[in-house]
Amino acid sequence: MSRTVYVNGEYLPEEDAKVSIFDRSFLMADGVYEVTSVLGGKLIDFDGHLARLERSLAELDMAKPEAFDDLLAIHRKLVELNGIDEGMIYLQVSRGSAGDRDFVFPDPEVVKPTLVLFTQSKPGLADSPAAKTGIKVISIDDIRWGRRDIKTVQLLYPSMGKMMAKKAGCDDAWLVEDGFVTEGTSNNAYIVKGNKIITRHLSNDILHGITRAAVLRFAREAQMEVEERAFTIEEAQAADEAFITSASTFVFPVVEIDGVQLGNGAPGPVATRLRDIYLDESLKSAI
Amino acid sequence: MSRTVYVNGEYLPEEDAKVSIFDRSFLMADGVYEVTSVLGGKLIDFDGHLARLERSLAELDMAKPEAFDDLLAIHRKLVELNGIDEGMIYLQVSRGSAGDRDFVFPDPEVVKPTLVLFTQSKPGLADSPAAKTGIKVISIDDIRWGRRDIKTVQLLYPSMGKMMAKKAGCDDAWLVEDGFVTEGTSNNAYIVKGNKIITRHLSNDILHGITRAAVLRFAREAQMEVEERAFTIEEAQAADEAFITSASTFVFPVVEIDGVQLGNGAPGPVATRLRDIYLDESLKSAI
Repeated sequence: MSRTVYVNGEYLPEEDAKVSIFDRSFLMADGVYEVTSVLGGKLIDFDGHLARLERSLAELDMAKPEAFDDLLAIHRKLVELNGIDEGMIYLQVSRGSAGDRDFVFPDPEVVKPTLVLFTQSKPGLADSPAAKTGIKVISIDDIRWGRRDIKTVQLLYPSMGKMMAKKAGCDDAWLVEDGFVTEGTSNNAYIVKGNKIITRHLSNDILHGITRAAVLRFAREAQMEVEERAFTIEEAQAADEAFITSASTFVFPVVEIDGVQLGNGAPGPVATRLRDIYLDESLKSAI
Repeated sequence: MSRTVYVNGEYLPEEDAKVSIFDRSFLMADGVYEVTSVLGGKLIDFDGHLARLERSLAELDMAKPEAFDDLLAIHRKLVELNGIDEGMIYLQVSRGSAGDRDFVFPDPEVVKPTLVLFTQSKPGLADSPAAKTGIKVISIDDIRWGRRDIKTVQLLYPSMGKMMAKKAGCDDAWLVEDGFVTEGTSNNAYIVKGNKIITRHLSNDILHGITRAAVLRFAREAQMEVEERAFTIEEAQAADEAFITSASTFVFPVVEIDGVQLGNGAPGPVATRLRDIYLDESLKSAI
């Protein structure tokens, strides 16, 4: 059965969901996005994603879409129309189409943003095998632009990074800049050493993960020690354990980095516990 | 009258020209482009643009669109259908739509690239007032990704740079990395000192401009001295003259950099002469 997706106020069969070739996300990557997970038919961390979307729009002087205040209702309607129990909802705001191509931003009074949402059904999302086996990562140079704190659709390099990982027989890539890990291709990166959780501090160099914020809060509430600072691949390879967080993976243990196995090669207790806490707490507050 | 544009084999009215919301250029900036100028109804430097397109596709492991060998015919048909005397033809190849969103590249045997072309009529393109008055630029940090030699649609920052220039009452921005100018937002940058033309050497740091290559060739043929190396904003402000090149501006003199007037504030003789030579020679070889 065809998915029903949302485009600028209309609920459409996915094969009819189109945007102008002059849309600025298509021509110039002038758009921002969010991905919200669905568990048990409810939205995880919705308020966090909405707040970050608002920040991304503001950072780029992009107008809010007219339906901004209806976003929760639109998310819920898509969940309902597509019968999503576990999965994700993808949302993108583009600066829109001025009917031609120009580097200069169009007048926001005249050209309205494009708003697109669609669901991705992923039965078993919370019970992913990768959570039990862990994932393997390679390291690659981080050559992305300098404003990774804005969640733009400039995802070509992260996509290339996933392909490099796949070719190397691994699951993902960690990005390294000036000798230090920034983050994964679509997730934040962590190591654990002597029961201390270490993850890069917030700056323009990394995405301000909504799941990152929640996981660090839960960790501190559980009396775990957290240190927010940069670390190297060598330090990560010598760590007791490692893991990633993102809206769609929650917490995934990392068991190998550039061919070096971490600990005994099985998911560590800290990553496993944080995943359990995150899922428990997020389900409680899901809306 | 509505433009006729080209989308995946069809010639369509521009308002009907659409792509799937799942197109990878829309979702992930996974696309490359070229802009070819038209003068007197003929294509300028077409072979150069086609060769660079082929290189961009190869660098990204992107398949050639099925119509690759017909691109000259498609360009000519669009010129004819839209009665273009002076203007540009924009071409974009996207990795296409797999009908869903995934960082992993789709199988090129299954998912074919999206090919889009449209014209932009610009009467007076060769006789632009900016060529006579010169343009003013500001300098901004170059925070783009590291593969600027690939002509991808990741143009958000160049677009933001144009807006910063506009807000400063200027025409364009020169990008500065590690203290040295890389290039303009959508053009290559040059200075002239003691009759020597200085422009940044080719690398992954800048676009390998088709117009750049032609202008440097013509300069050398005219016995002008050319030095390909990086320069600073301070060196540029102390230069005799400065200019930019691109497919759609050809050669534009730069008369002010960060508020500092160059020479007497009028276009310099080297930039003016190179523009004349470029237009003369390009018209001769236009197809």
